[in-house]
Amino acid sequence: MIINIARRAHDHNWELDPIVRSLLDTDFYKLLMLQFIWKHFPRTRATFAVQNRSVQVRLADIIDLHGLCDQLEHARQLRFHKSEMIWLAGNTFFGKRGMFEPAFLEWLEKDFRLSDYEVAVENGQVSLRFEGLWTETTMWEIYALAIIDELKTRAALKPLSEFELDVLYARAKTRLWEKMVRLRGVPGLSLSDFGTRRRHSFLWQEYVVLAMRDVLGESFTGSSNTYLAYKHDLEAMGTNAHELPMAVAALANTDEELKRAQYRLLELWQQTYAGELLILLPDTFGTTQFLRNAPEWVADWTGQRIDSKDPFVAGDEYIAWLEQRGRDPRRKRLIASDALDVDKILALHAHFAGRILDGTDPWDFRTAADFKDAQRWTPERRIRFSSGWGTFLTNDFRNCNPHGDKSFDPISLVCKLVEVDGRPAAKLSDNYAKSMGPAEEVERYRRVFGTEGQINVPVEA
Amino acid sequence: MIINIARRAHDHNWELDPIVRSLLDTDFYKLLMLQFIWKHFPRTRATFAVQNRSVQVRLADIIDLHGLCDQLEHARQLRFHKSEMIWLAGNTFFGKRGMFEPAFLEWLEKDFRLSDYEVAVENGQVSLRFEGLWTETTMWEIYALAIIDELKTRAALKPLSEFELDVLYARAKTRLWEKMVRLRGVPGLSLSDFGTRRRHSFLWQEYVVLAMRDVLGESFTGSSNTYLAYKHDLEAMGTNAHELPMAVAALANTDEELKRAQYRLLELWQQTYAGELLILLPDTFGTTQFLRNAPEWVADWTGQRIDSKDPFVAGDEYIAWLEQRGRDPRRKRLIASDALDVDKILALHAHFAGRILDGTDPWDFRTAADFKDAQRWTPERRIRFSSGWGTFLTNDFRNCNPHGDKSFDPISLVCKLVEVDGRPAAKLSDNYAKSMGPAEEVERYRRVFGTEGQINVPVEA
Repeated sequence: MIINIARRAHDHNWELDPIVRSLLDTDFYKLLMLQFIWKHFPRTRATFAVQNRSVQVRLADIIDLHGLCDQLEHARQLRFHKSEMIWLAGNTFFGKRGMFEPAFLEWLEKDFRLSDYEVAVENGQVSLRFEGLWTETTMWEIYALAIIDELKTRAALKPLSEFELDVLYARAKTRLWEKMVRLRGVPGLSLSDFGTRRRHSFLWQEYVVLAMRDVLGESFTGSSNTYLAYKHDLEAMGTNAHELPMAVAALANTDEELKRAQYRLLELWQQTYAGELLILLPDTFGTTQFLRNAPEWVADWTGQRIDSKDPFVAGDEYIAWLEQRGRDPRRKRLIASDALDVDKILALHAHFAGRILDGTDPWDFRTAADFKDAQRWTPERRIRFSSGWGTFLTNDFRNCNPHGDKSFDPISLVCKLVEVDGRPAAKLSDNYAKSMGPAEEVERYRRVFGTEGQINVPVEA
Repeated sequence: MIINIARRAHDHNWELDPIVRSLLDTDFYKLLMLQFIWKHFPRTRATFAVQNRSVQVRLADIIDLHGLCDQLEHARQLRFHKSEMIWLAGNTFFGKRGMFEPAFLEWLEKDFRLSDYEVAVENGQVSLRFEGLWTETTMWEIYALAIIDELKTRAALKPLSEFELDVLYARAKTRLWEKMVRLRGVPGLSLSDFGTRRRHSFLWQEYVVLAMRDVLGESFTGSSNTYLAYKHDLEAMGTNAHELPMAVAALANTDEELKRAQYRLLELWQQTYAGELLILLPDTFGTTQFLRNAPEWVADWTGQRIDSKDPFVAGDEYIAWLEQRGRDPRRKRLIASDALDVDKILALHAHFAGRILDGTDPWDFRTAADFKDAQRWTPERRIRFSSGWGTFLTNDFRNCNPHGDKSFDPISLVCKLVEVDGRPAAKLSDNYAKSMGPAEEVERYRRVFGTEGQINVPVEA
C-alpha cells in the first residue's frame, strides 16, 4: 500500500483542529433570529454570557484557555462561503422559498461579524462574555457552546489509548442503535435533532444525524444544525428562543410594558415570519400567565414549543387553552425539546400524537410494537406532536468511558442574554432552577408575572 | 483535503481482496507438524476434507464457488517471504531458538507447495478435498477454514448498509470489551488466542488479539496465529493435533499396532521436540484408555491439552493420573481449548490454577473481584492452567447483526484427515458426536480402544 506522504506531512503541520468550521454550523433558529434582530433591533447592544449549570464540573480545570481562545478566534475569522449563501437564498425552509431577504443576505455576506470576547476564570469555571451589537453577539451562543463542549470532550479523550477510544465509540454507537431500534417503525413519530449545543463533537453529531436519517426515514424530520442540513439535504429545524422576549422585556420602561413585552415580541415576529415559524415559546416568564393573558390572535399561531415545564402538563395545558379559545388542537403543532430520551419521546408521542386518553399509562409505550398492538390508536391525531431531541441524542456517552469515570457525561452549559442596552435581562421559566438574571430583577419579574404553574426541580443536562 | 487519487484508482482495479495473504497466516502447530511430517513421513500421502458440522447452515447456498476457488488459488500461489523465513529461523519459540532445522527451512522456502484441491457441492454443503503428499495437504487445513469462514462473513456483510456495518462492529467491539473487563486483573490467569480456524475475518482476529494484549497484559500469553505473532511480536502458541495419531493409527497393520499407534506417535514426536512442546492430546481414541495404558515415560511429558472431554472432568482425571504415577501436577501444564468463553475460562481457572477444592463452585468466579475476594486462593498452583480461546474470542457476533438474523453466527467447520496412503483415517474422541471416519472403522476402533469415559453430547461451535 502506498502511503500518502504529503498528507502525513500536512498532518504534522497542523496548527489547529478547528471545532467550528462553517458559520452555518449553528442552530437554524439563530439565523432566523439574526434576520429578525437585524431588521428590528439593528442598533441594540446585547451581552451574552456562558454559564455552566453543572457547577460540580470545574471546566477551567479541564479546558485549556489558550486552546479555547484559538478556537474562538478561528470561528471569528470564518466567513460565509458563496455556496452557503446561495443555499440560504435558494433553499426552501419549512416549505417556503425566500425565507431570508436579499438585503439581509447581502449584509450577512459583507458586514456580519462576531463580536470580541472576554475569557476569565471564576471559581473553577470558564467565564466567557460577548459584548457588542446584538447582531454581533447573538450568533456566539451556539459556536461558544459547541466549542466548549468539544474542548471538554477532547480533554476527556486524551487519556484514552487507541483501543479504548475505539471501545468508547463502539459503545456509544451500540447505544445509539438500541435507541433507533426502539423508535423505528413507530407510526406517526416525528423527531428532529436539536443537539448542536450539547454535542459530544461535530463529527459525532453528524454520525448521529445520518444514522437517524438512515434508520428512522420519514420519522426523522430534520436537524436544527444548519450546516448538517446544508451538507446532507435535510430540513433545517427551529424557530426562536428566549433571548427575544427577554430582550424586549429588558427594554421595557414600566411594569406594564414589561408585562406586554412577551406579546409585543410576537407582534414583531409575525411581521417577519409566518406559518410553521409561528411557534410560541410561552415559558420565558411562566407559561400559565402567558396563556391566560394572551390576546386572542396569539391562539392563531401554529404551535407551541415546550421547554422548561413538564411536557405532559404543558401540552395538556396548551390543548385545553386552544379548546377554550375555540381552536382545533389537531391543526396545531406541539414540540417538546427539554431533556428528552427514548422513553420520554415514546410516552409523549403516545400521549399527544393520537392516543385516546382513557387512562392508559403513556409510559407503557416502550417499543414500536407497543404502538402497533394498541387497539385504541386513533387515525386523526390529537395534536401534531414532535420531539426536538438534544443532549441524549448527540451526547449520550454515559457509562461508555472505558476508564469508568464520568468525564464524557454532558453538562448543562448555556449561553444566555444578560444585558440589553445596559439593562439587565432576566427569565423566569416554568422551573425555578432555570430562572436567570440578577436576583432583584427575577424578584421584580415574579411580582409582575406571578409564579403560577412554576415549580422547582433540578435541571437535567 | 487532498484525495489520494492513485489509491482510489487502484481500488477500482482490484481483482481480489485476498483472505490469506501470508503462508504464516496459519496456526503455529501446523508448522511444527509440517516439520515433523517432513522428517518422519516425507513420502506419506494424506487426504484432508472440509466438513461443516453445522449442517443446518447450507454453505453452498451462501458462498460463491468461483470466489472460493479464486481465494484457494491465491493461497496456493503464495510463497514465504524472506523476512518471514528469517523470523522462523531466528525467533525464539517457547523459549527455544532454532526450533526449525535449517534443512527444513530450506525445503520450506524452495520446495514447499500446497496440493491441488477438488471443489464440489453435496447436499447444500461445499465439498472441499485436498489430495497429495501429507506435506502438501496438511497446511491446507487452516487456510481452507479461514477462507471459508471469511467468505461466509463477507456474504453476511453484503446486505448491510454502511451504517449497519458500523453498528455490527460497534456491537462486537462492545461485547469484546465486556469480556476483557471481566478477565482483566484475574490473578495468575493465562490465556491465548486459538481462534484462527473459526475467525470472523483476519482483520477482526487481529483487532481482537491486539485488544487482548492491550487490556490483559501478561495474562495474554500469545496467539496460535503465526503471522500475528510475527507481525506483533507475540508468542506463537500451539503444539500438535489429532492428525498425527490418526495418521499413525491409519498406517497400523494390526489391531495391536493400532492400539500402540497413539504412543508410537509420542515416541516420534519427542525425537523432534522437547519441553513445552511435549503436550499430550490424549483424546484421539479416548482419554481414559490412553492414560491407563500409557507407558511410564508418557507421564514425563510436560502437559496435556483437553479437547473433546468436559475439561473439569478431564483435568481432574489427568491430575489423578499424574499423582498415581508419582508426578507433581504443579509442574505440569493443562490447556483447555474447546468451546471456551469467559464464564468457562474463569471457572476452569478457579478450579485448576490454585483453588483449594473445598466444594466452592468454580462457576461462582465471574469477575476479577471474585478472585481477589477469595481467601482460600493458594499461592502454589495446583497445575499450570491456561485457556486456548477460539471461536467465542475471534467470532462472537451472536446478536450483533442489525438485521437480526444469525448469518454471522459461527459454524463448526473442520478440515480433517480422511485417508493416509489409501487407508481410511478415523478418530473416536471423548465425544461420540466428534468421532470421524467410515462407520466400520469407527466400529473397529471402538472395539480396539473401548469407549470408557466417552459421552454423547452435541457439538458447540
